[in-house]
Amino acid sequence: MQMLAARMHGYRQPLRIEHVPAPEPAPDEILLKVAACGMCRSDYQLIDTYFDGPFPVEFPYIPGHEVVGRVAGFGREVPKDKAGYAEGDTVVVNPSWGDGTCRQCREGNENLCSGAGRWVGFGPPGGFAEYIAVQYQHAIPVTEKAAKAPELLAPMTDAGMTPYRGMRKLRDAGKVGPGRTIAVTGIGGLGSYGVQYAKLLGDGATVVAFARSDSKLQVAKENGADHGINVKDKSTDAIGDELESLTGRRTLNAVLDCVGSAASIRMAFELLGAEGAVAAVGLMEHKVDLPQFPFVGTELSYFGSFWGNHLDLVEVLSLAEAGHIKHNVTKIKLDDVNENLEALGRGDVVGRRVIVFE
Amino acid sequence: MQMLAARMHGYRQPLRIEHVPAPEPAPDEILLKVAACGMCRSDYQLIDTYFDGPFPVEFPYIPGHEVVGRVAGFGREVPKDKAGYAEGDTVVVNPSWGDGTCRQCREGNENLCSGAGRWVGFGPPGGFAEYIAVQYQHAIPVTEKAAKAPELLAPMTDAGMTPYRGMRKLRDAGKVGPGRTIAVTGIGGLGSYGVQYAKLLGDGATVVAFARSDSKLQVAKENGADHGINVKDKSTDAIGDELESLTGRRTLNAVLDCVGSAASIRMAFELLGAEGAVAAVGLMEHKVDLPQFPFVGTELSYFGSFWGNHLDLVEVLSLAEAGHIKHNVTKIKLDDVNENLEALGRGDVVGRRVIVFE
Amino acid sequence: MQMLAARMHGYRQPLRIEHVPAPEPAPDEILLKVAACGMCRSDYQLIDTYFDGPFPVEFPYIPGHEVVGRVAGFGREVPKDKAGYAEGDTVVVNPSWGDGTCRQCREGNENLCSGAGRWVGFGPPGGFAEYIAVQYQHAIPVTEKAAKAPELLAPMTDAGMTPYRGMRKLRDAGKVGPGRTIAVTGIGGLGSYGVQYAKLLGDGATVVAFARSDSKLQVAKENGADHGINVKDKSTDAIGDELESLTGRRTLNAVLDCVGSAASIRMAFELLGAEGAVAAVGLMEHKVDLPQFPFVGTELSYFGSFWGNHLDLVEVLSLAEAGHIKHNVTKIKLDDVNENLEALGRGDVVGRRVIVFE
Amino acid sequence: MQMLAARMHGYRQPLRIEHVPAPEPAPDEILLKVAACGMCRSDYQLIDTYFDGPFPVEFPYIPGHEVVGRVAGFGREVPKDKAGYAEGDTVVVNPSWGDGTCRQCREGNENLCSGAGRWVGFGPPGGFAEYIAVQYQHAIPVTEKAAKAPELLAPMTDAGMTPYRGMRKLRDAGKVGPGRTIAVTGIGGLGSYGVQYAKLLGDGATVVAFARSDSKLQVAKENGADHGINVKDKSTDAIGDELESLTGRRTLNAVLDCVGSAASIRMAFELLGAEGAVAAVGLMEHKVDLPQFPFVGTELSYFGSFWGNHLDLVEVLSLAEAGHIKHNVTKIKLDDVNENLEALGRGDVVGRRVIVFE
Repeated sequence: MQMLAARMHGYRQPLRIEHVPAPEPAPDEILLKVAACGMCRSDYQLIDTYFDGPFPVEFPYIPGHEVVGRVAGFGREVPKDKAGYAEGDTVVVNPSWGDGTCRQCREGNENLCSGAGRWVGFGPPGGFAEYIAVQYQHAIPVTEKAAKAPELLAPMTDAGMTPYRGMRKLRDAGKVGPGRTIAVTGIGGLGSYGVQYAKLLGDGATVVAFARSDSKLQVAKENGADHGINVKDKSTDAIGDELESLTGRRTLNAVLDCVGSAASIRMAFELLGAEGAVAAVGLMEHKVDLPQFPFVGTELSYFGSFWGNHLDLVEVLSLAEAGHIKHNVTKIKLDDVNENLEALGRGDVVGRRVIVFE
Repeated sequence: MQMLAARMHGYRQPLRIEHVPAPEPAPDEILLKVAACGMCRSDYQLIDTYFDGPFPVEFPYIPGHEVVGRVAGFGREVPKDKAGYAEGDTVVVNPSWGDGTCRQCREGNENLCSGAGRWVGFGPPGGFAEYIAVQYQHAIPVTEKAAKAPELLAPMTDAGMTPYRGMRKLRDAGKVGPGRTIAVTGIGGLGSYGVQYAKLLGDGATVVAFARSDSKLQVAKENGADHGINVKDKSTDAIGDELESLTGRRTLNAVLDCVGSAASIRMAFELLGAEGAVAAVGLMEHKVDLPQFPFVGTELSYFGSFWGNHLDLVEVLSLAEAGHIKHNVTKIKLDDVNENLEALGRGDVVGRRVIVFE
Repeated sequence: MQMLAARMHGYRQPLRIEHVPAPEPAPDEILLKVAACGMCRSDYQLIDTYFDGPFPVEFPYIPGHEVVGRVAGFGREVPKDKAGYAEGDTVVVNPSWGDGTCRQCREGNENLCSGAGRWVGFGPPGGFAEYIAVQYQHAIPVTEKAAKAPELLAPMTDAGMTPYRGMRKLRDAGKVGPGRTIAVTGIGGLGSYGVQYAKLLGDGATVVAFARSDSKLQVAKENGADHGINVKDKSTDAIGDELESLTGRRTLNAVLDCVGSAASIRMAFELLGAEGAVAAVGLMEHKVDLPQFPFVGTELSYFGSFWGNHLDLVEVLSLAEAGHIKHNVTKIKLDDVNENLEALGRGDVVGRRVIVFE
Repeated sequence: MQMLAARMHGYRQPLRIEHVPAPEPAPDEILLKVAACGMCRSDYQLIDTYFDGPFPVEFPYIPGHEVVGRVAGFGREVPKDKAGYAEGDTVVVNPSWGDGTCRQCREGNENLCSGAGRWVGFGPPGGFAEYIAVQYQHAIPVTEKAAKAPELLAPMTDAGMTPYRGMRKLRDAGKVGPGRTIAVTGIGGLGSYGVQYAKLLGDGATVVAFARSDSKLQVAKENGADHGINVKDKSTDAIGDELESLTGRRTLNAVLDCVGSAASIRMAFELLGAEGAVAAVGLMEHKVDLPQFPFVGTELSYFGSFWGNHLDLVEVLSLAEAGHIKHNVTKIKLDDVNENLEALGRGDVVGRRVIVFE
């Protein structure tokens, strides 16, 4: 069987859209007809070499890690009774395929597999194609109602799950609650969901969005942020002033950083009050620097948070099913993949672009 | 009443030992005849301007924050029945004098007071003097047995308490346990206690000391470290090799950093395995840098930990009382304060030097 | 100065409303002109001997622990600059007056003082009177806006704070989140606030109110509960059926018990799924029994939660100030205190009755 | 192939030792030649009907859940490269075989599987037999050194793991530390390991063993308990007196209950100070009762803790490998299984009896 796919033939080159053989599922895999695949800034970064250390890929390579598909075939060893879905059913693909035996996998954190783990779209071929093969246990069936809008499901596997896990870390560390202020920095694909989780898991905290464009702040407010601050070209002091005029206090208690640049992290720490914390889910630069005295002297915390695990995905799908999630999705065609990658690289995508195949 | 005191008359100058008036206790203070006062690298740093931002002092100024004294007088509003001690009793001084009303103080973390807090030896006059005035509620009475060796009590207020709180953070974050490896970096005043807490709170973890001299590693092993690595002039890879030969694994699960330099923190993060954490209690440089991808992608954590609160001090005193603590203390005279400050600045003090006045 | 007060002259007798001398504030106390004092089932229980073990009182005694007042005088040692309020200001009284020196007080949990703690209305004279004397540090000033409706502030000190702390325990234990179900049992004074916190701190969980009357369930739904079940005369199985039809699942993940009877706690544990938890804030009977096998075999948890601490009160006041709290308050007169005590004993008060004096 | 097995032919009857066919491993199972199988009070209880509700078995049935074996065969679908062991290797059997798909399994808590989980020796045939078939992923290989004493490994799968998990819950809930007192009640198979974990995870706490015979207290002290109290026929007050004379305080901060009777749990709660907690791992009676006022009013906690998960077992094996565990094991023969079951029922077994087959 042939299929259309957008493939890397080298770093820093446009993808080539071409006809290639559809994958044969391995014994423990299923074949999916891709219904929708989200486009993420990290797809741009993959092509731009950001991940060539931890996630080297072999060319030609199909990126795409936010995958929703209709079940189109079963490998011969897939236990159909345990799988929980049948041919034709719509499934969401949990992108982290851990080895199941390391400590992290045993804890349920396959996203952090320290053994022979793989991540779809960063090793195994991804979803910028009409078909994909997926280990059966990572396919999560959804309700019939949800199946009707696969473009809303696809982003939940990364943009919708990653900031959820980051917010969970801030909540679990006791950094949220009434009278506190949480900032979400970077209102792109992740941050536009992030502000929603900041409200939902913030337990009464005030939520402030930080972005570098007013259109993104507008999205943040529509998604529930109490306030927005355009941080472009502003000093930390100026942002502190603005914060004070909006919330009555110059300091933050928690920051969900969806940017991952040195400047963004530095600003976050400069604004934190005593016992404050930053959870970082963004990846833009390779190094960040922190000020050692206030970090130690006011007991700040910094948490890395990576993607999400199976239960995180189940939980965000449950939130979406219950109508608690606002999406900001634009449907696009596979043919337009390269121009959208460029837009992601420039940082001027509002919300999420999702390739749909139907 | 006159007393001898070692005072700063400016930054980066030797202290002057001189006769000055003894303090008059304020209404809510007690007067202590100082029995012992520990010398800390941060005393050197205070003089060297490291703290001139957060803790400016007015000259002439008496440093010294590890204070043990005999009660010599009561301010008129001190409730003697509540105080828990009488004239002549020996008390240990909890160095953080919070304002009692901010959120941090209400949580019992006066060490992090975000209001009008003060820290003895970094604002209020310290213990490099024969007498000191102390807010009554920060004086903790000790047993008669403990009172006989004030030079062992003094370091508990910082060197003995600070790494304890740092280790508590690593334990509370779930980073210790059987089959894990904890490194303690920097075996000076703090680290020589730190390795003991790593064993005590490590719940079966293997403890490795990292230091830049064999004599410090020797202290670490005598204090319970399972292994020691001399990291001087070694690459992270070489340290990883040594770690593997000692423990069977190249990675660490937790690091208690007692150094606070950029190099030390960088090495710590380069050696951490997935879900690992660093708790920093050391303060040497002003900036540290972290590698963003592995930090996010393997969900590392970084915790600042500052000194300790009232209960931390009570707990380490209880450990010492129960005989669980090994001390490495050298008694010195007030006259020798300047040469000891220099030695602290050079980093070649093994264990703790404590000024005794009796 | 004379004042009107409702006083106990013995257990199980109506209060006598009589003219008595107003209190003189001790040196560290302030005098308050009571603006409002909430009426709680525990006032009925105090009179009915429930607390005669832990909280014996001396007759004649003035009950009332939900106190809001206007500052009418200062004891001579109250530090007016630190107090944060001036004569005429409105303050809310944190009811737990710990000794400040035990471990619990050092942690900020004065509500659990294991030393010489006192609880207003259960030892020190309470607020069923025109004036009350209060230790200055337990008076929390409120905004001018909030001061206009003291009847809404008074219940925050118990009914509004107690279930908040209970829900915090369930959240901190990781028992809430998307796809989970939380039940709040008993929709009286506490539970009508409790359902609001279950929504606010439930992080997306479904909230079900359990009560024995439809009018109370009505209040629960108006206050945000997703569903209500009238449990009167129903078996656990029948309740499980109803739960399944409402939520799709027969089991609960968390229960905030605002009743405190053996029957209520037993039902809660019978409905818990694996890893479920009950936080108990209600006090009705003296003994409850738990089924040992499912408790151990499915790792259930049971948490006692008592009133709240200073920060809990600050946080619920902050929520109320921000408009996040719905009140169900009926203003009554001191003259009607006895009939309202009887109604509380019968359990047929919907919402909170608050004595107002202005 | 025939094998010897001890089988139940009904409740409350002696096991019959008989020749029966050895099991054929299913496709995902391995065949083990049993080297050692521990005997547990719960084996007695299984026969005595305690578990006939949650764990009904079909007769004839082979009990035995503490299993160590030598790999003797592979089902055809076992991935030998992933398994981590080869024919002839010694493996320890993790007894909880969850379905891998429920929330608890996804968290790594297969011991709490809320789906189609099974527990060896309480459903699938157990280890009171020469051979057993085991799902491949639940077999954990051990070092050659450890393999030489299978009788010391077998109890780690229950007696050695169950109190470890219980102590972890007390530690994770913040109930241990310097100056605190932990009691371990019931020094049978579990408790003799339990006191060791109380020391190891107690972070400096004092550990007191409670038992009803001096010979058991002797074991507890040899295993590291600081003190022992013979609680037989003593009132809580008398025990409190003894506690005070031993530790200086009448109250406990944490209790690891290895008994599971109403009397034992009641005594535990009567001795707890404010914020204290009981973790229950014992199962003797079906109901326990708790005093509601002090439970709520001093914020006590009660935790059920069941067996252990894969990582718990890995961790206790790691502790044993490192020489941190003292065993109290008596080797017995399969022929003596019935008399040992009786002894377990009477409660007069000191340490652990382990059936060896080699």
